Amino acid sequence: MKENRYDDQEFFDRYAEMARSHKGLSGAGEWPVLKEMLPDLQGCRMLDLGCGYGWHCRYAVDQGASAVVGIDISERMLQKAKQLGDDPRITYVRTAMEDVCFPPESFDVVISSLAFHYVEDLQPLFRAVFRMLAPGGKFVFSCEHPLFTAYGSQDWYHDEQGNILNFPVDHYFMEGKRDALFLGEQVIKYHHTLSAYLHGLRQAGFNLNDVQEPMPTPQMIAEDEEMRNELRRPMMLIVSAEKPR
Amino acid sequence: MKENRYDDQEFFDRYAEMARSHKGLSGAGEWPVLKEMLPDLQGCRMLDLGCGYGWHCRYAVDQGASAVVGIDISERMLQKAKQLGDDPRITYVRTAMEDVCFPPESFDVVISSLAFHYVEDLQPLFRAVFRMLAPGGKFVFSCEHPLFTAYGSQDWYHDEQGNILNFPVDHYFMEGKRDALFLGEQVIKYHHTLSAYLHGLRQAGFNLNDVQEPMPTPQMIAEDEEMRNELRRPMMLIVSAEKPR
Repeated sequence: MKENRYDDQEFFDRYAEMARSHKGLSGAGEWPVLKEMLPDLQGCRMLDLGCGYGWHCRYAVDQGASAVVGIDISERMLQKAKQLGDDPRITYVRTAMEDVCFPPESFDVVISSLAFHYVEDLQPLFRAVFRMLAPGGKFVFSCEHPLFTAYGSQDWYHDEQGNILNFPVDHYFMEGKRDALFLGEQVIKYHHTLSAYLHGLRQAGFNLNDVQEPMPTPQMIAEDEEMRNELRRPMMLIVSAEKPR
Repeated sequence: MKENRYDDQEFFDRYAEMARSHKGLSGAGEWPVLKEMLPDLQGCRMLDLGCGYGWHCRYAVDQGASAVVGIDISERMLQKAKQLGDDPRITYVRTAMEDVCFPPESFDVVISSLAFHYVEDLQPLFRAVFRMLAPGGKFVFSCEHPLFTAYGSQDWYHDEQGNILNFPVDHYFMEGKRDALFLGEQVIKYHHTLSAYLHGLRQAGFNLNDVQEPMPTPQMIAEDEEMRNELRRPMMLIVSAEKPR
């Protein structure tokens, strides 16, 4: 059962309040690293898995992408994406990532931003992406860090006074469902190990190009002291892989 | 200052009691994964960084390696390595990993087993390995998992009754010195992020071949119930990289 929390109005409204929602890419702390890891998009055909508000789709056409497909399970997300700027080069398709299906070698680039924690089994998805990519095509995605998703709650471990003690890890090698707290609600997410991502990409036929863990910049910490805590544990992983020629 | 704890007799004796010391490779839980990630060693020139008892050096000549160099900072380790089976194809050199220096393209394979937590700065070492490898040469190493080294103590977080609650993570992006508990003693180790390993290899010129996190097998858990805890957090990372041709 693929969960579609974003079509719940209240949850959708809370998501709208996040900086990455209303500010777009500049409101996403990891964007500078993700952007640097993207290939040249000029003239390319791109697919965005879990496109949400479509920020990355619009960025791609701004960079000269010839055709962009954004898929998302949430109708509200896709409506919002179209509202924020329709473009004849962008096609939005409502479908779950697990069901995505385009002809072989349809795309030069496949991206995904913070969506794979909604996917139970990465391997079929990786194989589908591999099939849909042209030889030499790039697969670049951000995901929640395995260290961040292992325990489940995605919350700090606090002392009785509410001070942060550490970030807890447990059940690391037990992949699968977790009850996480996100936007004040219980949300089902899936934990994947680092091996599931990296060795999994190799098993699906990809070459690994790069792996980075974005961290807050001094400027981000100056603007929001809370960001200092983000130096205490990694929240995201950004991975770049390639289909061999 | 490069620490040389293994020339302390008491510490050396405790190390000798570990399964991986007296049983060799079969006593190292991660060996099946590391072995699988090694290239064909037939006829190759191999360097082992932090060779310890020399188990991997002897394995390499058993596999047909033509010349193997094992380096270690500890004289006791190298004496023990020679005791366990001297071979004219193996040369042991006493030096710190940070000081290793052989002519460019001297080796076809460079390996290291659980030694990089003694290295403060990985980047100069990665660049040295890159220089010493022939084009197409492989660099395969196991290291302590960044999740395991971040907090410092390398110990579980317990409740008042001594039960394991979780494995704590903190100071993740603050790389550097940690006071870890190993073999009942305080040992200085260095924490490196996952990016320092993987993006660091890319920065040094390597291609990434594979990344795996070894986990206990059902057999290991059947033989030692304590091993079940090793499913709760990853302790090691095994990385395979390659110098482009």
